[in-house]
Amino acid sequence: MNPLFEVRPERAIADLKTLAGFGKLETGVNRRALTPEDLEARAWLLSRMGEAGLEAHIDGIGNVIGRTPGVDKYILIGSHTDTVPKGGWLDGAMGVIFGLELARAFVEAGPDAATGVQVMSFNDEEGRFSGLVGSRVFSGAYDYAEALALRAEDGVRLGDALEAAGYAGAPAARVEPGTHLAYLEAHIEQGPVLEDAGRRIGVVTDIVGVERAKVHFLGAADHAGTMPMRMRKDAAAALYDFAVQFARFCREECAPGTVWNLGHLKLDPGAYNVVTREAELGVEYRDSTRAVLEKIRAYLQSATPEIAAAHRVRGAVEVGVKTDPVVMDERVIGCIEAAAHMLEAPCMRMPSGAGHDAMVFTRLLPTGMLFVPSIGGRSHDLVEDTNEEDIALGLRVFGEAVSRLIRDGLGAGSPAA
Amino acid sequence: MNPLFEVRPERAIADLKTLAGFGKLETGVNRRALTPEDLEARAWLLSRMGEAGLEAHIDGIGNVIGRTPGVDKYILIGSHTDTVPKGGWLDGAMGVIFGLELARAFVEAGPDAATGVQVMSFNDEEGRFSGLVGSRVFSGAYDYAEALALRAEDGVRLGDALEAAGYAGAPAARVEPGTHLAYLEAHIEQGPVLEDAGRRIGVVTDIVGVERAKVHFLGAADHAGTMPMRMRKDAAAALYDFAVQFARFCREECAPGTVWNLGHLKLDPGAYNVVTREAELGVEYRDSTRAVLEKIRAYLQSATPEIAAAHRVRGAVEVGVKTDPVVMDERVIGCIEAAAHMLEAPCMRMPSGAGHDAMVFTRLLPTGMLFVPSIGGRSHDLVEDTNEEDIALGLRVFGEAVSRLIRDGLGAGSPAA
Repeated sequence: MNPLFEVRPERAIADLKTLAGFGKLETGVNRRALTPEDLEARAWLLSRMGEAGLEAHIDGIGNVIGRTPGVDKYILIGSHTDTVPKGGWLDGAMGVIFGLELARAFVEAGPDAATGVQVMSFNDEEGRFSGLVGSRVFSGAYDYAEALALRAEDGVRLGDALEAAGYAGAPAARVEPGTHLAYLEAHIEQGPVLEDAGRRIGVVTDIVGVERAKVHFLGAADHAGTMPMRMRKDAAAALYDFAVQFARFCREECAPGTVWNLGHLKLDPGAYNVVTREAELGVEYRDSTRAVLEKIRAYLQSATPEIAAAHRVRGAVEVGVKTDPVVMDERVIGCIEAAAHMLEAPCMRMPSGAGHDAMVFTRLLPTGMLFVPSIGGRSHDLVEDTNEEDIALGLRVFGEAVSRLIRDGLGAGSPAA
Repeated sequence: MNPLFEVRPERAIADLKTLAGFGKLETGVNRRALTPEDLEARAWLLSRMGEAGLEAHIDGIGNVIGRTPGVDKYILIGSHTDTVPKGGWLDGAMGVIFGLELARAFVEAGPDAATGVQVMSFNDEEGRFSGLVGSRVFSGAYDYAEALALRAEDGVRLGDALEAAGYAGAPAARVEPGTHLAYLEAHIEQGPVLEDAGRRIGVVTDIVGVERAKVHFLGAADHAGTMPMRMRKDAAAALYDFAVQFARFCREECAPGTVWNLGHLKLDPGAYNVVTREAELGVEYRDSTRAVLEKIRAYLQSATPEIAAAHRVRGAVEVGVKTDPVVMDERVIGCIEAAAHMLEAPCMRMPSGAGHDAMVFTRLLPTGMLFVPSIGGRSHDLVEDTNEEDIALGLRVFGEAVSRLIRDGLGAGSPAA
């Protein structure tokens, strides 16, 4: 069967390189949401959408939106063009340009289809003001007025930044189930799994849930020479024991895909010759299922006081940020896999260990994600990169998948299709 | 047998309270070496020595020195009047005032003895410029000219500070074995051992050696969601394992009195959601014997690369500050014990886990130390304190011990005496 439209990878890659010029820093990009570089990038994207023949605008939360004309239903294709400080050129940007390229190819082909493409660059996915701001407002998960009151670390209010950018006049666009039939997002993997497995396409099955906790121990600051070991209340010693036991618990009693990190730590007074009075450990853990997250939370609550007591110190746990795990739609997964098979792209199913705009759509729309490999698994770093052949293959598979969805609906990936 | 002289605890305690007024801060003292408060305290001490009838002066390194007149041999009695930042009122000061009181009592009694008392307040024991400066220069362990070039953290040169104080004209006094027969120092315990054991006098057997090392792990900073656990190079995880294994080694394979502290730590980048690239742990350990210190040093060298390899990171150890353990003279120990028994003061032998001016004399003179209890074991803190009855008892025991040494020589503590 002829494809509905034909994507042109070289054109998309040229657009990606142009986009990488806004906020360019060495081999990467520094383009925090609503900074001057980011506003220039949004203006450029808007004009690129116009040149592609899309109905395009920037809404009241700063999302850049382009629709193929002449249709009344859409496949939503989104990601983000803002970056972390000193980020890579593809994180977010690739998914947006894939959307632009698909919509552009659709307009060029002018297929006889009732469903088109709506491409979105969601504002502030990376959290200058708060994570996933544009997609959360668009999906209704976050109140628009509340979002306007958010402040960046430098004190800037989101509402003021939008006003200064000239975006504040427009209303905030909203998802419309019925009009929007599915949400798809292409993204770099940001990890080494595809490269390690020798696959070129990742089909995301779910996005892991993330929880953070602070584990705190309070002892007594004593002279580290004159206080006998048996009488010390050493908060640091409790923390080290906790860290090792926590890792053992996660490794032995959770799931094969469970990941955790103990990368943030404070000791007070923090001296060679003074027993540590206060020790605080930042704990982050991720898993695809809520059951595992709950199991780890329960372990934190029981192990902290136990380990504290063994060291004669006080222990406390405070669970902070929580994000629930979400699952992708099996029909969209099948559709991406079918496209990969047709194009003979070696692919594999995998969870996403990082959060994405796609997270906010899983309860509203059939949602799916496609990953391309990250060289060395590096991301959130100036050196983040993906081979151009992998970008091109990813675009073709993504285009084929969306083409099938438009032509055949959500049954497109089923064995019968 | 009548005592050679009679100390007056109430007078010594009054002097201690006056001295605590220089640099007074809440219940403690802030009197860093050669600051204005410290210079005032030295001037006061010098005048107190003069009033007591001593031959007194301040030497070229800032040591305050007073000798009982009319004799040609001396028991050296020293400690220091400088404090750590926000220190206690007795740390160092008590030992100096005990020396002053003994010399004063000696002059008052005017005994027919060829040996008198030389009391010393050694400059900068606590290390504004470097630790034990005054006693190291006095003992010849440190070159005077070299010492003058030392700089404080605020950039002040010791030589300039001595010049400004008006001390620089005088030569630096030196110990003279033959003229100086023994060195004795009274000090607060700075730990909880006496209080815990219900004893009021500690007789120091040795001062532990101290070593410090930096243990360093170098891994890779990866996304803590997308990098599978088995592929991480987590420097923090290596550090936690090291910390727990090091503590187990010290506890199980060293000596009952071995102490260690892992109170200083740096993680980079130090984030919840980034795998730690670089982790550095400050290690301090103390023991009475060189063999144990060497054993721990060997463990550091072998365990660090082993644990690093298990975590796929690089490990390195750098051993820095080393202070050898020193032992007190058995004859002086016996003399202090005999004095305590005579005065029915419950006493015990114990090592000192902290360093003292006495350390520099053990190779030159028969040396001994007496401890009085520290309330709650607290020291190097504004709340450091000792019951006045314990100060008084300590002074009487110390006076009796020195009286015996003067009268009977170094055999004073032997069972036959």
